[in-house]
Amino acid sequence: MVNQMDTKIVEMIEKVVGKDGYSTKVADRYAYGFDASIFHNSPDIVIQPRSTEQVSEIMKIANAEKIPVVPRGAGTGLCGSAVPIKGGIVLDMSRMNKIKEISIGDMWCIVEAGCVYNDVNAALGKYGFQFPPNPGSAEACQIGGMVAANASGMRAVKYGATRDFVLGLKFVKADGEIVESGTRTIKDSSGYQLARLIVGSEGTLGVITEVILKFTTIPKASASVLAAFDSPEDAGRCVSALIARPLIPASCELMDRISIEAVNAAQNNPLPDCVALCMIEVDGEPEAVDRDLKIVEEVAKSVGAVQTIATKDKATIAKWTAARKAVMISLGALKPGYTSVSLADDMAVPVSKIPDAVKAYQAISKKYDVVIATYGHAADGNLHTKMLLDPYSADEWERGEKAVNEIFDATVALGGTVTGEHGVGISKAPDFQKERRTELGTIKAIKSAMDPNNILNPGKMEQWEGSILTHLRYPCKEYM
Amino acid sequence: MVNQMDTKIVEMIEKVVGKDGYSTKVADRYAYGFDASIFHNSPDIVIQPRSTEQVSEIMKIANAEKIPVVPRGAGTGLCGSAVPIKGGIVLDMSRMNKIKEISIGDMWCIVEAGCVYNDVNAALGKYGFQFPPNPGSAEACQIGGMVAANASGMRAVKYGATRDFVLGLKFVKADGEIVESGTRTIKDSSGYQLARLIVGSEGTLGVITEVILKFTTIPKASASVLAAFDSPEDAGRCVSALIARPLIPASCELMDRISIEAVNAAQNNPLPDCVALCMIEVDGEPEAVDRDLKIVEEVAKSVGAVQTIATKDKATIAKWTAARKAVMISLGALKPGYTSVSLADDMAVPVSKIPDAVKAYQAISKKYDVVIATYGHAADGNLHTKMLLDPYSADEWERGEKAVNEIFDATVALGGTVTGEHGVGISKAPDFQKERRTELGTIKAIKSAMDPNNILNPGKMEQWEGSILTHLRYPCKEYM
Repeated sequence: MVNQMDTKIVEMIEKVVGKDGYSTKVADRYAYGFDASIFHNSPDIVIQPRSTEQVSEIMKIANAEKIPVVPRGAGTGLCGSAVPIKGGIVLDMSRMNKIKEISIGDMWCIVEAGCVYNDVNAALGKYGFQFPPNPGSAEACQIGGMVAANASGMRAVKYGATRDFVLGLKFVKADGEIVESGTRTIKDSSGYQLARLIVGSEGTLGVITEVILKFTTIPKASASVLAAFDSPEDAGRCVSALIARPLIPASCELMDRISIEAVNAAQNNPLPDCVALCMIEVDGEPEAVDRDLKIVEEVAKSVGAVQTIATKDKATIAKWTAARKAVMISLGALKPGYTSVSLADDMAVPVSKIPDAVKAYQAISKKYDVVIATYGHAADGNLHTKMLLDPYSADEWERGEKAVNEIFDATVALGGTVTGEHGVGISKAPDFQKERRTELGTIKAIKSAMDPNNILNPGKMEQWEGSILTHLRYPCKEYM
Repeated sequence: MVNQMDTKIVEMIEKVVGKDGYSTKVADRYAYGFDASIFHNSPDIVIQPRSTEQVSEIMKIANAEKIPVVPRGAGTGLCGSAVPIKGGIVLDMSRMNKIKEISIGDMWCIVEAGCVYNDVNAALGKYGFQFPPNPGSAEACQIGGMVAANASGMRAVKYGATRDFVLGLKFVKADGEIVESGTRTIKDSSGYQLARLIVGSEGTLGVITEVILKFTTIPKASASVLAAFDSPEDAGRCVSALIARPLIPASCELMDRISIEAVNAAQNNPLPDCVALCMIEVDGEPEAVDRDLKIVEEVAKSVGAVQTIATKDKATIAKWTAARKAVMISLGALKPGYTSVSLADDMAVPVSKIPDAVKAYQAISKKYDVVIATYGHAADGNLHTKMLLDPYSADEWERGEKAVNEIFDATVALGGTVTGEHGVGISKAPDFQKERRTELGTIKAIKSAMDPNNILNPGKMEQWEGSILTHLRYPCKEYM
């Protein structure tokens, strides 16, 4: 759907953002039809607002004309939340990238939605503080997108996800009303926590323009243990055993055999050749880190580790981290003509259920003859899988979709969720609706109350209907 | 308003909860017309449900008959949230007090709404874990009430408030629908964070029946510094200076001269005779606590402390803590015929604004000739004031109300909120509406969408109209 936008409306928009504040060029619209997911659809116009007031004026126009609006951060999302499937407006927030205030003594900062995660942390780091969620796309992703997705990374078990750091936020409603939600205080009991309702709403309830973020101190020391296992189930038992000590690790990255093989093939064998491994990070006071390293090795062995390597050496840890981060890209090279796709990419289960989840995913991989790599943030119970598919083959996509549905069913049956940190968007929408079936009526009621004309990121999440094999960006002729 | 409830409706209720599951006796209805606030109004019936299903059936009856329903925990709230100002049903949740599951390896527990805070922590403590918010009413208050109020205590700056520990919750909507919101996972990005919208909603959006709570480890060591100051402004500077080091204290309790005098008079002088004091707690690894104690003393002196006492002795710390906890009760004895009332009892400001806030409150105290004691959780920027009033005197109440309004105005002008941990209820409702004016439309829209017949705790928060000097429980004939 690539419509030409009505000239009168374009003129109204130009009055708000100026000539250089928007584009209706086909190339721009095409480019903004992507995010990092498997989907694509071009918007009718791309707008780059410079202020909350401009966003408000744009929303007034869109609401009066019933034009869909999709807010967009860096486009690093993996489930299609920023793909404008109904056309209309993409609001690119990247020009609103000011860090407006850092109030160290108050332990918060106020940043615009378009601020890049790493930039915010670089600014906080000067004072010994951090905003910890640390998503995989830290170099590029924007705070507004992180809030919209309730994004996080490998350290939620110890530090929490984005939702735990949002003290308040400014957002623009569908009708253009500007809402300043939450507070500039460490805590508040002042009625509905509206700011935390907007967290995770993926642009369906309002356009986030500013965020008041709490931050916390950077730990004084950290160290890691690499533990090799003969089975992914053993590796999966590691985190629960640590927590029960009690020792809350800063992170625990799990990789299965396929992930390890892919990385070792692509990167000159940085990792031990084993069936599964965990990289377990501990942090805090230097004395505690020394003590905890020993506990981690002991616990890893007690659940079946065949080899452990403990280190405080930053270069070694950086090598391991780079290897873990290379999984996604390395998988693509494993099977010629195949590509790794984000389907069932972000399940989370109670930490104790990781062994069961990994086992279930492997059985599903076998059943549908689809290569599925499992890795992820085991400390948070957050498992990523990537499937290797021939993107030209309708048969492969269809088997993939069946595998996805079974993976999600298995996850929810274990008390888990279809998405731990990426969001719902399109790719999890059908299974999200099953997972959240008792919440669905309330979600729809809130959406209607806040966006009666249904212009904010319409058609996703609770509104999605049918198969996820639509709007595919891959050249599979049956599903283009 | 003490109505007789229709016999037919009472019969329907009896069918749901049995003969011993409700009371329409005048004495019971009178007793359940109180919480710990300055307000009173009797309900028409008190119901003590035993299960979520019973709550659901009661809500179906109430919704069909348009009967107001006020959920109630232990009644320890200080702002009138549990007072049934429109009569109807009080749902006393105290029989739903089971700890249903503690899953140590998953780092969460599932508890019924009527569980007492200290009971939950006693159960978690066996494994080395805690649910940290620690409200002043820890011995009695219930988890459902804590969630409804987003309650916390003195340690939010380091550990967060109740909102930060709610992974999910089961609640019953106005129409009786049972919603299981959130997840049993450390993190989720699965759509709207409904569970966190219910946090702080004070029974206006649904009846909380079960909560999935994250927990965290108990620190290995703790210690405290008592720092005496010549002015409350100096004392107020302490926390920001600590955070900037960076050193996040576990807590910092502030007391002004009136609070110190009241406690010393009532308790044989447990505290140094000074103008203001801070009790600053640090916790964590034993080595870190030793180091941090020295930093706290140094920082306290740098902002003007005239005396500091650092100790790890548990008996000394317990004595200080008892003295701080005695403020509220001791104030009442300070002026014969007067009583300390919860008016403007729970402001929160950005931590760096504490000196300005204390100064403003003292000026307002002078202007209206009302004794106002200021104390509270300075580490969280959370200041409690208590006013001493002659409860028979309409003039005193009226001067009190004017002082309240100015205190709230001053607080919001400093970037603060009218309530940090107690909630809105009645006593903060008019100023809450001013503070949250840009959120008000959205709050009303969500309330209407979720409770179209307006039966859940009606007339409070965003719906309150007029002066707060109504429904007073005190024998002031002008306002009874």
